[in-house]
Amino acid sequence: MSKEKNISRAFGSDNWAGVHPDVLAAIANANVGHAPSYGNDDLTREAVEKIRGLVGGDCEVFLLFSGTAANVLGLQSMVRPHQAVICAETAHVHTSEAGAAEKHIGCKLIPLAAPHGKISAADIPKQLGYVGNEHHVQPKAVTVTQSTEYGTVYSLAELKEIAKAAHDNGLYVHMDGARIFNAAASLGCSIEETTRDVGVDVLSFGGTKNGLIAGEAIVFLNRKFAEDFDYRRMQGMQLASKMRFVAAQYVALLSNDLWKRNAEHANRMAAMLGNGMCGLPGVRLTQRVQSNSVFAILPAEVIPEMQQRFGFHVWNSDLNEVRLVTSFDTAESEVREFCAELAKSVASRR
Amino acid sequence: MSKEKNISRAFGSDNWAGVHPDVLAAIANANVGHAPSYGNDDLTREAVEKIRGLVGGDCEVFLLFSGTAANVLGLQSMVRPHQAVICAETAHVHTSEAGAAEKHIGCKLIPLAAPHGKISAADIPKQLGYVGNEHHVQPKAVTVTQSTEYGTVYSLAELKEIAKAAHDNGLYVHMDGARIFNAAASLGCSIEETTRDVGVDVLSFGGTKNGLIAGEAIVFLNRKFAEDFDYRRMQGMQLASKMRFVAAQYVALLSNDLWKRNAEHANRMAAMLGNGMCGLPGVRLTQRVQSNSVFAILPAEVIPEMQQRFGFHVWNSDLNEVRLVTSFDTAESEVREFCAELAKSVASRR
Amino acid sequence: MSKEKNISRAFGSDNWAGVHPDVLAAIANANVGHAPSYGNDDLTREAVEKIRGLVGGDCEVFLLFSGTAANVLGLQSMVRPHQAVICAETAHVHTSEAGAAEKHIGCKLIPLAAPHGKISAADIPKQLGYVGNEHHVQPKAVTVTQSTEYGTVYSLAELKEIAKAAHDNGLYVHMDGARIFNAAASLGCSIEETTRDVGVDVLSFGGTKNGLIAGEAIVFLNRKFAEDFDYRRMQGMQLASKMRFVAAQYVALLSNDLWKRNAEHANRMAAMLGNGMCGLPGVRLTQRVQSNSVFAILPAEVIPEMQQRFGFHVWNSDLNEVRLVTSFDTAESEVREFCAELAKSVASRR
Amino acid sequence: MSKEKNISRAFGSDNWAGVHPDVLAAIANANVGHAPSYGNDDLTREAVEKIRGLVGGDCEVFLLFSGTAANVLGLQSMVRPHQAVICAETAHVHTSEAGAAEKHIGCKLIPLAAPHGKISAADIPKQLGYVGNEHHVQPKAVTVTQSTEYGTVYSLAELKEIAKAAHDNGLYVHMDGARIFNAAASLGCSIEETTRDVGVDVLSFGGTKNGLIAGEAIVFLNRKFAEDFDYRRMQGMQLASKMRFVAAQYVALLSNDLWKRNAEHANRMAAMLGNGMCGLPGVRLTQRVQSNSVFAILPAEVIPEMQQRFGFHVWNSDLNEVRLVTSFDTAESEVREFCAELAKSVASRR
Repeated sequence: MSKEKNISRAFGSDNWAGVHPDVLAAIANANVGHAPSYGNDDLTREAVEKIRGLVGGDCEVFLLFSGTAANVLGLQSMVRPHQAVICAETAHVHTSEAGAAEKHIGCKLIPLAAPHGKISAADIPKQLGYVGNEHHVQPKAVTVTQSTEYGTVYSLAELKEIAKAAHDNGLYVHMDGARIFNAAASLGCSIEETTRDVGVDVLSFGGTKNGLIAGEAIVFLNRKFAEDFDYRRMQGMQLASKMRFVAAQYVALLSNDLWKRNAEHANRMAAMLGNGMCGLPGVRLTQRVQSNSVFAILPAEVIPEMQQRFGFHVWNSDLNEVRLVTSFDTAESEVREFCAELAKSVASRR
Repeated sequence: MSKEKNISRAFGSDNWAGVHPDVLAAIANANVGHAPSYGNDDLTREAVEKIRGLVGGDCEVFLLFSGTAANVLGLQSMVRPHQAVICAETAHVHTSEAGAAEKHIGCKLIPLAAPHGKISAADIPKQLGYVGNEHHVQPKAVTVTQSTEYGTVYSLAELKEIAKAAHDNGLYVHMDGARIFNAAASLGCSIEETTRDVGVDVLSFGGTKNGLIAGEAIVFLNRKFAEDFDYRRMQGMQLASKMRFVAAQYVALLSNDLWKRNAEHANRMAAMLGNGMCGLPGVRLTQRVQSNSVFAILPAEVIPEMQQRFGFHVWNSDLNEVRLVTSFDTAESEVREFCAELAKSVASRR
Repeated sequence: MSKEKNISRAFGSDNWAGVHPDVLAAIANANVGHAPSYGNDDLTREAVEKIRGLVGGDCEVFLLFSGTAANVLGLQSMVRPHQAVICAETAHVHTSEAGAAEKHIGCKLIPLAAPHGKISAADIPKQLGYVGNEHHVQPKAVTVTQSTEYGTVYSLAELKEIAKAAHDNGLYVHMDGARIFNAAASLGCSIEETTRDVGVDVLSFGGTKNGLIAGEAIVFLNRKFAEDFDYRRMQGMQLASKMRFVAAQYVALLSNDLWKRNAEHANRMAAMLGNGMCGLPGVRLTQRVQSNSVFAILPAEVIPEMQQRFGFHVWNSDLNEVRLVTSFDTAESEVREFCAELAKSVASRR
Repeated sequence: MSKEKNISRAFGSDNWAGVHPDVLAAIANANVGHAPSYGNDDLTREAVEKIRGLVGGDCEVFLLFSGTAANVLGLQSMVRPHQAVICAETAHVHTSEAGAAEKHIGCKLIPLAAPHGKISAADIPKQLGYVGNEHHVQPKAVTVTQSTEYGTVYSLAELKEIAKAAHDNGLYVHMDGARIFNAAASLGCSIEETTRDVGVDVLSFGGTKNGLIAGEAIVFLNRKFAEDFDYRRMQGMQLASKMRFVAAQYVALLSNDLWKRNAEHANRMAAMLGNGMCGLPGVRLTQRVQSNSVFAILPAEVIPEMQQRFGFHVWNSDLNEVRLVTSFDTAESEVREFCAELAKSVASRR
C-alpha cells in the first residue's frame, strides 16, 4: 500500500510506533555471551520479579511473543471446551483475533453489549440461565479489556463489580491488558490496584504497545491456573528460545518508571489531540478520551487526505468515524500539526 | 539452575547464543518513525524479497515468531485432521514440540525409524497400506529436518529420493529448516538447491539459530498451500504487530552473505571440536559431524564437571552421550579450551 | 425427575415419542444373518438410493447417529477453522449443541437476529465487512433450520433469497433439516423442492424426530463437500458398525410415504392444538403454528399442573412461554384432552 | 463390493453379526408411549443400575452411540492436550479410529510394542524420561484393550501390574472393553474382577459386538473423571435423544446372564474353529485363541475362495494371515463347514 509509505510519525496505532531507546539499549546490553535458553536465564528471572513487584507479589508470570496468545492461552487455563467466555462484543479476542480462541480452546465466546467498549456487571448473571443444562455451553470466565478497544477506561469500582458478579457465580476473571499501562496512567493508580485489587485472576500483561519490540506476558494472579502452563505455552507455540531478549525489554520498561512515563505521555498526547479536534465544525468525538486514542466522526471529504498524511484507521466507514492512536513517541508537534491541518481542511470545505 | 549461571560461551545450543551485531544494528536502524504494523511495511517487503531470492523466486513467504509454529502451521497448510504426517522418530515436531502438531492440526504423526536422524525414502511407501480405508489416518505429508536433530545432513540425492517417494504417492514434502543454513553450508550448495530443487513444497526457514533474536519464516515453494495462510498465521497467534523488527533481522542475515558466514563458522567450530575430541580415550563420536553439532559418548565421570563449565546437554544419560552445539559466535579458543580440558579429564581418570 | 414418569403421551418433544411400528418391523426384518459392517451392505445402499430419490438424484449420502453430528460434520466440510458460519441466534447448532461446532470445527458462529427463528437474506451481506482482513474470521457458510426451532417454516422464496445472498458472496448453504419432513409437509412441497431447488449445498437430513429410533443422514447436494467425508465421519465418531440397522429405519421411513404421513399427522395435531388453545383467556400463541410445535404464553398459575400432566417444556420462564411439540404418534384425543384441561384451568383461575 | 453380498453367516467380524432376539424384543417393549429424552427416563436409570451392579457399584455410567467415542471421550476425561496416552501399537484407538483421539483430545498417543496385542507393565516407566520437561508431551494415561485386538486376553495379574505401574507413576488407566464380555468369559471371572479390581479408572464398556444394535457405555470407576462428562458427551455428539432404546438393549443384555451366554458361545465357537484349523497342512495359528477370534496363516491359494464364501478379513496380506471372528450367533455347523472346506482346499492344492 503505497499510501502507507514515508510516514515519519502517525496515528495508525501504538503498534506502528517504534521501540523506546532504553528498550533497544537493554537488548544490546543483554547480548553478552551465551545464556540458557527458554527462560532459564537471569534476565528472565529479573523480568519476572519486576512484574511480580508491579502486581503485588504472589503470582506466576510467563513471557510470550503475542498478545493474542496471552489472551487465548490465559483463557485456555480457565475454561474447558464445553465452557464459555463472556466478553464484550467489542473485545479484541472476539472481534480481531481471527477466531484463535475458538480454534485453540474449542469453546464459545458469549458477547455482551458493550457501549463504549465496556460491559456491565449486571449483564453477567443474565447469561447463566442454562447453567447445569448439558445442551448449553457453560459460562466459566469473564474477560474485560483495560483500557478498552475504544480507549475508554473501566473505573476500579466498575471492575470490582464485574469481578464480584463473576466470582459470586463461580466464574473467573481475565483481563486483556494489552494497554494496561495506559489504563493505570489514566486512573492514576498502580498496576496492582487495577488488576489484583479489583479481582482479576489472570492478566494479559502487554508490553508491545508501550514501547517494546515484541513482548507480552501472562500473569496468573490466581496461581492455580498456572498449573502446567509451561506445557501449554510450548504447545501454544509461544516459548521463545532466546528469551533473555524478551525479558530484557520488560526489565527496561519496568525500570525507572519507563512504563509510566511512556503511558502518561501517550495519554497526554491523546488528550491534547482530542481537545484540539473538539469543537471543529463537523467533527464530533464519539468516545471519551481516557487513554491513548481518540475516536471521532470527521466530515467525509476531509478523511482521504488526512488519512494519507497521518496514517490513521477509518473505524466505521458508514459513520465516517476514525480512530487516532497516540504512543510513547508521538510528538506534540505532530498533534498540533494534525489539529491545524484538520482545522484548515474542515474550514476550506465550507 | 545455578549451574547455568556465568557461562560466557557454551555448547548448550545455538539458541543459547546471542545476536549477531549486524542483526542488532539492523534493528536499531529500523527504529525510525512509525511504520504500518502486521507486515505492511517496507522492511517486511524487503525481507520477503531477499528470502525469495535465496530460494529461487516463485514462492510465498510469511514471517513468524517461532520455529515450532513454522513447522506446525506449515504442516497444517498441507494436511487435514484425518490425514497424517510421516516424520523421523527423531523429528523435533514429533519429540520436542509438546504435541503442538496434534493439538493444532488434530492429526497423527507417523514416526519412521531414523538412524542418524534421517529417514529413508524406501520406508515411505510402506506407510501407505491403509490408504483409502476410512478407519485409518491417511498419510498426506512427509517432513524432513535439514540439518537433522543429530547434526547430520541429508545429501541432495537423498532428499530427492524422499520427495520423489512422497510425490509419487500423492504426499507433500515439508522441510524443517531450523538449521537450513548450516545444512547448505555443509553441502556447499545454495538454499535453493537444498529446498526447491530437491522437491520441498513448504519450508520452515529458521533464522533464530543462526544469529537472530527471534525470527522464523515459512516459505511456500508450492504456492497453493499459502492460500489463506494470513488467516492461519493470525489464528495461530504468530502475527507480529511490529513486524518490521523481525524483517530487519532477516534483511541483515541475508545481506553480505552473513547467513553463510555464520553457518560456515559454526560448522567449522563443530568440525574442530569433533576432531579435537576424536581419539581421546573413552570418547566416541556417535554421529558424523556434518553441521554444527557433535554427539559423543564421554566417560561418565568427566561429564558433571565438564557440563558445569561448558553448559552442554546430556542427550542420553543411559549411554553417557552428550550433545555439543556450536554457533556463529563460538570462539576457536573455546573449542581448544574444551578439548584440552576434556583431554586432561579423561587422562586423569585413568 | 419424578414428574417425568408415567406419561403415556406428552408434548415434551418429538424425541419423547417412540418408534413407528413400520420402522421397528424393518429393524426386525434386517436382522437376518450377517452383513458387512460400516455400511458395506445392501440395506445401506438401498437407504442411500431412497434418500437420493427424495432429493432429486445427484448427491452423496452418509448415515450418522446424531443430528448434532450431521450439523457439525456438515459444516466442517464447508469451512476451515479461520472461517465462520452465519446462523440464526436461535439456531440449534448455536444454542443447544454444547459448543460442538466450536470444538470440532474450531470456527466461530456468527448469530443473526432471527425473529420467529428465521434469518433474513438482507442481513447476510452485512456480515461481510471484514472479508479479506486477516484479523477477522471469514464467513464462509450460512446455516438455516427448516422447519425452525420455533416451529415456523421458511417459504421457498425466502430460502432462495438466502441462498442467493450466500452464493453471490461466495458462501455455502447448510440446512439443518432435523424436521425437514414437517417443513415439506407444511409447504406441501417435495423434499427436493425445499432443499436442492432452493440452493442448499449440504443438508442435515433428520429421521429421529419423525419416527426413527436413531437415524440421521447428511446429504451433500454439492458433491465437492463429500470429498473425504468417510474419514471425517469416522474421526467424528459417527460411523455405525452395524449400519444396516440404521439404514433399515430410513428405508422404512421413505417407503409408502411414511415420512409424509408421519409429518402431516404431527403438523395436523399441532394445528389442532393451536386452534384449541387460541382464544382461551390469558393464552396467547407467540409463533405461527406452521409445523409440529406450538409456542404459547399461558397464565403462570396453570403451568405447573399442566406441565406435570402433559410433560411440555417451559421455553421462557420470564414470559411464561411454553413449547408444545406434537409427533407422529400424538393422538387427537390427547390434543382434545389438553385443550379441555387448559380451558378448565384458565377458567377456574378467574 | 459384490463379494460381500449373500452371506448368511460369516467370520468377518462380530459387528457383521445381527442383534440378539432378546435385545430386539426389549426395544419393542420399550416402544410404549412417550418418555423423556436424553436419558431422563426409567429404562436409562435401569440400565445404569444394571451396569453398576456388574462392575461393583460405586461409579458413574453414561450411554453412548459409538465405541470409538467411548475410548476418545473416556481418555479426554483423563488427559489434557499437552499430556499423552500410552497404548499398545495395536490399540484400536491408535490404529483404527482415524485419528479421532488426536483430533478430539489434541494429545499424542505413545504406542508401545505389543506382541500378541498386549503391552508390558515394564515398558510404562520407560516412557517417563521426559516428565517435567516442557518440550515433551507428558504421559498421563495408559489404555489397554481387553480382550485385545488379537483376540488374546490379559490375565488379571498382568492387568494389575500394568495398573500398578501406571498409578505408581501418576498415570490413570483406561480399558477399551469393546469385547470386555468375551474377556470375562474367557477368564471365567466377573466384569468387576477384570475392571475395577485390577485398577481400571475408566472403562469403555461395549455392547454392540455382543449382540446389541448399537450401544456403548462409558463407566467411570474413578468418579472424578465423570465431572462435567454430560457436557463432554453432548459436545462429543454422543447424546442419544431417544436414549431409552439404547438403554433397553443394555437391560436385555445384562438380564438373565445374556451377556455371558453370548460371550461364552462366541468364545466356544472360536475355540472350535481354532481346533478345527490347527494341524491342517499349511495352516498356522498366529495367536492363542482366548476369546472370539482366530488369527491364522493360510496357504495363499486358498484364501480368495474361502474369503468369498466365509467373508473374513485378510489381516496381513504379506503373511497371508487372516482374522476370523465368531459371535453370539455363529452356528456350530458354520464352524464345521468352514473347517471342512478349508481342509479340502488345503488338501487339493498339494
